[in-house]
Amino acid sequence: MKKYKKTDLESYTLGTTLTLELLNKKANYVKRVYIHSKQEKNETYYKIINICQDKKIDVIFSDKIINTLSDKENCYVIGVFEKYQEELDLNSNHIVLVNPSNMGNLGTIIRSSIGFGIKDLVIIKPGVDIFDPKVIRSSMGAIFNMHFQYFDSFHAYQALTPTREFYPFMLKAKTNLKDITVKGKYSLIFGNEATGLPDSFLNVGVPVIIKHSKSIDSLNLDNAVSIALFEFTKNNF
Amino acid sequence: MKKYKKTDLESYTLGTTLTLELLNKKANYVKRVYIHSKQEKNETYYKIINICQDKKIDVIFSDKIINTLSDKENCYVIGVFEKYQEELDLNSNHIVLVNPSNMGNLGTIIRSSIGFGIKDLVIIKPGVDIFDPKVIRSSMGAIFNMHFQYFDSFHAYQALTPTREFYPFMLKAKTNLKDITVKGKYSLIFGNEATGLPDSFLNVGVPVIIKHSKSIDSLNLDNAVSIALFEFTKNNF
Repeated sequence: MKKYKKTDLESYTLGTTLTLELLNKKANYVKRVYIHSKQEKNETYYKIINICQDKKIDVIFSDKIINTLSDKENCYVIGVFEKYQEELDLNSNHIVLVNPSNMGNLGTIIRSSIGFGIKDLVIIKPGVDIFDPKVIRSSMGAIFNMHFQYFDSFHAYQALTPTREFYPFMLKAKTNLKDITVKGKYSLIFGNEATGLPDSFLNVGVPVIIKHSKSIDSLNLDNAVSIALFEFTKNNF
Repeated sequence: MKKYKKTDLESYTLGTTLTLELLNKKANYVKRVYIHSKQEKNETYYKIINICQDKKIDVIFSDKIINTLSDKENCYVIGVFEKYQEELDLNSNHIVLVNPSNMGNLGTIIRSSIGFGIKDLVIIKPGVDIFDPKVIRSSMGAIFNMHFQYFDSFHAYQALTPTREFYPFMLKAKTNLKDITVKGKYSLIFGNEATGLPDSFLNVGVPVIIKHSKSIDSLNLDNAVSIALFEFTKNNF
């Protein structure tokens, strides 16, 4: 077993908490669990062992493989799973990321999105690999609650679900986020961390701006997404 | 010159954009600027050279020092500055971070805070070092617009400015962020990334909760701060 590459058919969770989350949510995809000799025999450990026994998942005690796969010193459990596809729910609200490039950001966006009850994520290619262990880690396991689908272009996605409200978030937009009234199903659309959305999105749905002072060029992507999520869902909480 | 340590009296900016921002905002504290032989002679380069000439700041061409200080391959300019203290404005709104531990989060919080017009930051010790080059980089230079002050305890800070509204953000709070009406000067208070605020803050001002689903334990700190900033300042933008 080697360090993760995008072309691999398997990925893995680093650490006990993430691995337990994987086993709780996606046990059917788990191929095996590695455990380091330094792992404490605590409550989480026994939960992991019990699920593995119950689901007939191999548990392998190997310090060597854990040392190979993990950069962190105190990671003593790794769960290996087969990459899966969770189909997008076309009747739900969506987050759409156009060409996201930062793995930490993607993980954090997934965490906030699940937090605010949006469970469907669209990624327009090229975009970062959602199954990279770094994304999984920064999602704190929220990824295992997410449906997601990659599309070759925004048009391909739009054609699949044309009747919803599209809200592209752009610095050139005219409508202030605070003035939006939510109606019907919607997609919140965000561009790349460095470049934002292309100008062509000014012709898509209702372009929205999160207004801020001129002292900064833009907000960090995951902060912008979190603010939008809060505003769009706050009447649900 | 060695890699940054917390006890150093100087810190530095990595890259042309950050160094130009440093020179634009805090030229009086800049001791010298290092330039790598691979640096392109572009517009930003000439701006940096001009400011240095104007302010009589030494410019040193040294590949070796840049290679020592920077982990990234394409960092060709470094600005070294004396650490400074910018006094807190007691008549402004504040962000208060109690024991923040993540440098990337701190930088991003500074960027969002400046974006939404809050220029005063309080850090309750122990807390991450605001002058670490990683914080400076993740702030995208917004740090040079920020006033900030470290305090040994929340009480020491509170004693200095007792008449403002305190809003500690806590999962145990009863008041929903969306129901807050802003009046007077305020401080938005956030706890450590892993542990949040201690329960004692339930007795401070008006504790606030950003409600989310039970599918996640909590929001990422910089996302929570950004949502709060947006809500508290949205009538200004």
